[in-house]
Amino acid sequence: MNVQISNRLKDINGSAIRDIFKLLGDPNIISFAGGNPASSALEPERIAAFAQEALAENGVNLLQYGQTEGYAPLRESAAEFFRHNGVETDPAHILPVSGSQQGLDLICKALLNEGDTMLVENPTFLGALQTFRTYGARFAAVETDEDGAIPESLEEQIRAHHPKLIYLIPTFQNPTGRTLSLERRRRIAELVNEYQVPLIEDDPYCDLRYRGQALPAIKSFDEQGYVLYCNSFSKIISPGLRVAAVVCQDDGLLRKLVVGKQSTDVHSPNLNQAIIDKYLRSGLLQEHIRQICASYAKQMDAMQRMLSTFPASVSYTRPDGGIFLWCTLPEDFNTTQLLSTATKQGVAYIPGTHFYADGQGHHNTMRLNFSNASLENIEKGMERLRALFLSQGLC
Amino acid sequence: MNVQISNRLKDINGSAIRDIFKLLGDPNIISFAGGNPASSALEPERIAAFAQEALAENGVNLLQYGQTEGYAPLRESAAEFFRHNGVETDPAHILPVSGSQQGLDLICKALLNEGDTMLVENPTFLGALQTFRTYGARFAAVETDEDGAIPESLEEQIRAHHPKLIYLIPTFQNPTGRTLSLERRRRIAELVNEYQVPLIEDDPYCDLRYRGQALPAIKSFDEQGYVLYCNSFSKIISPGLRVAAVVCQDDGLLRKLVVGKQSTDVHSPNLNQAIIDKYLRSGLLQEHIRQICASYAKQMDAMQRMLSTFPASVSYTRPDGGIFLWCTLPEDFNTTQLLSTATKQGVAYIPGTHFYADGQGHHNTMRLNFSNASLENIEKGMERLRALFLSQGLC
Repeated sequence: MNVQISNRLKDINGSAIRDIFKLLGDPNIISFAGGNPASSALEPERIAAFAQEALAENGVNLLQYGQTEGYAPLRESAAEFFRHNGVETDPAHILPVSGSQQGLDLICKALLNEGDTMLVENPTFLGALQTFRTYGARFAAVETDEDGAIPESLEEQIRAHHPKLIYLIPTFQNPTGRTLSLERRRRIAELVNEYQVPLIEDDPYCDLRYRGQALPAIKSFDEQGYVLYCNSFSKIISPGLRVAAVVCQDDGLLRKLVVGKQSTDVHSPNLNQAIIDKYLRSGLLQEHIRQICASYAKQMDAMQRMLSTFPASVSYTRPDGGIFLWCTLPEDFNTTQLLSTATKQGVAYIPGTHFYADGQGHHNTMRLNFSNASLENIEKGMERLRALFLSQGLC
Repeated sequence: MNVQISNRLKDINGSAIRDIFKLLGDPNIISFAGGNPASSALEPERIAAFAQEALAENGVNLLQYGQTEGYAPLRESAAEFFRHNGVETDPAHILPVSGSQQGLDLICKALLNEGDTMLVENPTFLGALQTFRTYGARFAAVETDEDGAIPESLEEQIRAHHPKLIYLIPTFQNPTGRTLSLERRRRIAELVNEYQVPLIEDDPYCDLRYRGQALPAIKSFDEQGYVLYCNSFSKIISPGLRVAAVVCQDDGLLRKLVVGKQSTDVHSPNLNQAIIDKYLRSGLLQEHIRQICASYAKQMDAMQRMLSTFPASVSYTRPDGGIFLWCTLPEDFNTTQLLSTATKQGVAYIPGTHFYADGQGHHNTMRLNFSNASLENIEKGMERLRALFLSQGLC
């Protein structure tokens, strides 16, 4: 067959993360590569019970076509749930979507033209970068430090590039685990309102806090609706159910997100939305979150304890939550080249280069996930990594 | 908030069908507007049992991230199921998607550039037209008659327009209910292979046959893989679960569909795919299809019987299956203008103009759905329509 692939996809070959996911199937490889919740955090019996209950109460409606705008009870319960992050919204401005990834896709579909500039953190979530690339986005980087994106740099880049969109993960950022400070949240909300640039606040990890005080979302300081808030139930309930939601307070833009969703998948599956709605209304979620946080905190500590045995030339982030650590090796290390040796020795990670907007350089960095490995495997896998790096001359 | 909508969406205001769906909520309106299965065709208890079973057997995997390529057991069972339409494929060339709409979206994402020409039947499915428009497609029409698309016209239009894609619904077409003849299926498969133009064969209604002999899919005559076959479980199991599948035999193109899906929603929900897989393996589907066909046949007959009481100036199609009839009123009738009066009088339909690629004219046509109305409501609703048209001077 002789076909010509579209300009938008011809040079995009898929996410390194998704392909490395396939390694997860090999029981001999301890994977720190994915962004998966722990298997023990997933609750098939409880989900089956909610499914049963939802289908018994409202089965015919759930199995029938639903509204593109989302399952009405979930729009209500999600609006209620988001309050604890300081996000105040009415249900009519919440759009349930099939994972935050779809939220990003629909926002791009509604706002980006080929060649438009986006401001992103560098490094940032590679799956988001892939979506933005399919819309022909160009990237400019906001400088970051230990407290996340630097507002002065954000303002400078807005003035320099007149971006169409800004993308930030303010809490337990992917890949670094870093969190934007309270003061910067307030300031960034002011800036995007002042310069009238929509900001995507991608916030899937905010409930996975193991220490320190919870911070309100940037959205909580948003006066005119320039912050498009995305939150997901993937990390706290189940990624396989594919349920997330976008808060968009502008009716015109929300309508375009809905139109985009109509043409993309008509609507998100009703049953999945109903299961999440049941969970949110059950009163059981806070306790479940408390339990998974208790485990993940131990896993993060174990990984950091192992990293503290590496030579001091290896630096790493010390987040207050989330599921990732970000490691930096000495300049001459190349984690991309070392990955195949690492997997042969039974350990996997994501090379850091994939998280940079230009997809180049930073070869001495890597992302480590700790949520989906047991304490024993964290110890074993990190030992394998240490041995590998030492054998490559790490000192 | 002051935002500029992207070029692709700024002039697209959503599908008339989805907005008319909202009328379905009003119990005083008998709707022939949607494309919904009958409520009685939906099986909440059975689906709950399959969900339960799937989660009990494989719950943690189903709730975890899945593969973009789809849930492996469903790829197998769908490959087996599609055999009865003459579609022979191995599971590796089946991509489960979130409804056929997503299949159309992903194919466009992978193949269309702004301004590319597509060949479509005129009239054709308005939801597909909306998706194609979001990719900047231009349209050229293939002439059709009672036996569907005319191969000579297809060839002529291929030569004239060098289209990037062709879109056909060969069986019980939406909106006309017409079916492409066997001989034309064979010829069209030859033509798309000869001219090397990918054809989307959208085939959601093929199992809803009430009379006559089943015809093999165009795909069954496809030698080099130019036919991209889309089939859906929406009409025979449940639209709300959003499970369909695309058969694509070209590995390069399939990879691009997967890359597009990664960036759109990562993967389709595992639980939904597992439920459909369970149903396909249960041995119960053929009997279920037999039952819904028996009801729908009666509903179609009732609607046609009512139409036969309209003045002879109203013509309508006489399909062998599917869920739609297509009506043509005298030239001076305008179904778009009459719709608000119709809904006030308690009956809804879709004005035919929406099904035309240029979205104009053909104001004397309309699509009527019979699958989602009881025999009693079909009688009542059609009586209301007849009274309305008579009051407008129909003779």
